[in-house]
Amino acid sequence: MAHLTQSPKPAIYLDHNATTPLDPEVIARLSAWALDWGNPSSIHQAGRGPKARLRDARASVARMIGANPLEVIFTSCGSESNNTALVGALSALKASGDKRRHVLASSLEHPSVKRTLEHLSEQGYEVEFVPANRSGLMRVEDFRARIRSGETALVSCMLVNNETGVVQPVKEIAELAHAANALMHTDAVQALGKMPVDLRDLGVDYASFAGHKFYAVRGAAVLFVKRSSPFQPLIFGGAQERHRRGGTENTLAIASLGYMCTRVGEVPERAKHMASLRDHFEARVLAEIEAVSITGGESPRVGSTSSLLIPGTDGETLLMSLDMEGVQVSTGAACSSGSPEPSPVLLAMGLTREEAQCSLRVGVGWGNTVGEIDSFVEILKKVVTRLRDLRGWKSGSSSESSADASTKGRVV
Amino acid sequence: MAHLTQSPKPAIYLDHNATTPLDPEVIARLSAWALDWGNPSSIHQAGRGPKARLRDARASVARMIGANPLEVIFTSCGSESNNTALVGALSALKASGDKRRHVLASSLEHPSVKRTLEHLSEQGYEVEFVPANRSGLMRVEDFRARIRSGETALVSCMLVNNETGVVQPVKEIAELAHAANALMHTDAVQALGKMPVDLRDLGVDYASFAGHKFYAVRGAAVLFVKRSSPFQPLIFGGAQERHRRGGTENTLAIASLGYMCTRVGEVPERAKHMASLRDHFEARVLAEIEAVSITGGESPRVGSTSSLLIPGTDGETLLMSLDMEGVQVSTGAACSSGSPEPSPVLLAMGLTREEAQCSLRVGVGWGNTVGEIDSFVEILKKVVTRLRDLRGWKSGSSSESSADASTKGRVV
Repeated sequence: MAHLTQSPKPAIYLDHNATTPLDPEVIARLSAWALDWGNPSSIHQAGRGPKARLRDARASVARMIGANPLEVIFTSCGSESNNTALVGALSALKASGDKRRHVLASSLEHPSVKRTLEHLSEQGYEVEFVPANRSGLMRVEDFRARIRSGETALVSCMLVNNETGVVQPVKEIAELAHAANALMHTDAVQALGKMPVDLRDLGVDYASFAGHKFYAVRGAAVLFVKRSSPFQPLIFGGAQERHRRGGTENTLAIASLGYMCTRVGEVPERAKHMASLRDHFEARVLAEIEAVSITGGESPRVGSTSSLLIPGTDGETLLMSLDMEGVQVSTGAACSSGSPEPSPVLLAMGLTREEAQCSLRVGVGWGNTVGEIDSFVEILKKVVTRLRDLRGWKSGSSSESSADASTKGRVV
Repeated sequence: MAHLTQSPKPAIYLDHNATTPLDPEVIARLSAWALDWGNPSSIHQAGRGPKARLRDARASVARMIGANPLEVIFTSCGSESNNTALVGALSALKASGDKRRHVLASSLEHPSVKRTLEHLSEQGYEVEFVPANRSGLMRVEDFRARIRSGETALVSCMLVNNETGVVQPVKEIAELAHAANALMHTDAVQALGKMPVDLRDLGVDYASFAGHKFYAVRGAAVLFVKRSSPFQPLIFGGAQERHRRGGTENTLAIASLGYMCTRVGEVPERAKHMASLRDHFEARVLAEIEAVSITGGESPRVGSTSSLLIPGTDGETLLMSLDMEGVQVSTGAACSSGSPEPSPVLLAMGLTREEAQCSLRVGVGWGNTVGEIDSFVEILKKVVTRLRDLRGWKSGSSSESSADASTKGRVV
């Protein structure tokens, strides 16, 4: 296909936590889905195809995440799912006369959780962010110490951190929440395609997912709401999504997400492939570039993400130098990029501003190869050496790098 | 392209108010847009193309609607835009200490306005729906009689009704609202591509638009917020849309909407074409099918919409019979379809349930031809005759039709 060559496809794309390329099979099906443009609410012929695609996608998503199709609400993006879960749960409780106003969340949450909770705190909720530590792993005991039976209405903790890839103990936190009669939400946006997800096992009331982190067309995301859990829409409108989300359904994007979910069987193998690339990458970097450390490296992580501290460099400069060499990575969450502030997630983990400013996030995807990783390592070595030389950085020196000894080597 | 023939493209699609087919030029550009899949917030190469598309689309949309690009917020759908405008305006006022809690809206609003206001009324707002009459045209005096300076915070009135096509006096209502120091919102979702839209002239504070009513890919919509008007996001998250709407931007859909907006120059000619088809259709139907009337026919309307009352038939049965003949129309708003209730818009206009139940909505689009209209009229005549015969309907009889004399002929 000639038009494929016009794509600005990067030489080496290693920023899959920001967004993923479309799966080649998604691209192949794009025209067919796009031409099924009818409104699924229309009861004539033009609505029937889209309606069937919607039903099939809902079933595939439900199967992939361990849910009932009725528990799947399609939204437009992960941020909408997170906003809807938090506001929807708390508003529904309040409307039912519930007086609890305390909310617990990890301090590593995505801005779509954090800012929504900050907004709710202006409306009379007492929002408490559970502190994290340098491991990037939230501790169940830290939630236990703060949860207040009869006061805590909702607990939110992400399943996979978007910057470190650390997998949080969501199942245990959900048990704790339920024991205190609180509701449990998890932002699982970074989990799809990287690890098996079984919501029945996790036991949460609400979970958020996004298609564009999983090789699907942007514009389709999922909010899981457990059948018996309280809920109120964020977007009111017609009868779509059983009155839980107004707006004509984005059937093209939803079909693509549903299609990707039919490939749930590939996830273990894909995850293994990504983990082998990531492990190979980290082993080489730690062996061949001095003083590098892996943030969250000792915690349980999905196999696709590597968060590096590279003393003697500046993350932003590093990123741009790598970009000029055809390698695409990031310094932190894409949604915060352009901001002069270092990653709030790394700061919340207790890293200093100087440490956070020399961080680099590498997000491996399904399509990466060991050849790409090896090329990246060679480029990274060259670029890091150049930047360190420019700054006069010396091994063990702390004049240009503020990373203290504890962040060096594998230990963070 | 072989796959194009697999499309379930209807024989005669006349339901453009529900959703529009993709413009052929949009289909031709689909792959290029889809392959520009990077996250526009990424500062590396993969983000640059999408970021440029976003900027270009924002400029094109702004030009089309008479706005500054900074006043354009991309959302996921018209319903989200409406929800965000209403909640965002009222929450921002409240947060600033404003004590006004009275809201005025037309009684013909789309469910995404009506249900959002109903929800707000449960939270202490006094929501008043201004009654409509059989003309379908809202009267400025009816707003004037109800607006309360110092109490009314917000007024909302749609620009084009989705069922009758009636164009409301939004400019005059906005002047009235502003004279009372209230904010003004208009749901303009049904206006794009059907009439010129100049928000500077309309003078509203907030306006909603949706790409999928304008031949673009579903998943992109617009909320216009005048630069100085109060606003608070509905979806909190990252820095996207200048912190006014979180979530990775749906660049594919946004690019398609932006592209369609570059074709603003075609609108007058396209509108004229649609009006000529609609007028031809209505003239033939009124002349050749007994006792038909046009709801809102005497009011100013966009040229694309025809809302018929066909006594002696049942709208739902009529729709299904037409569908079997390859003609796709609707009985009312698609988002309410499947509901046994007759159109709330027609009921709000004072039509009886029996009248509303024999209604048919015809929505002409850019691509329709006079040949299609003539075929439709022939099919409609045949189907109406068959249905009336089955019910024993006779001209002038009121035994099977409850439409009273005033709904017959051209006068509604």
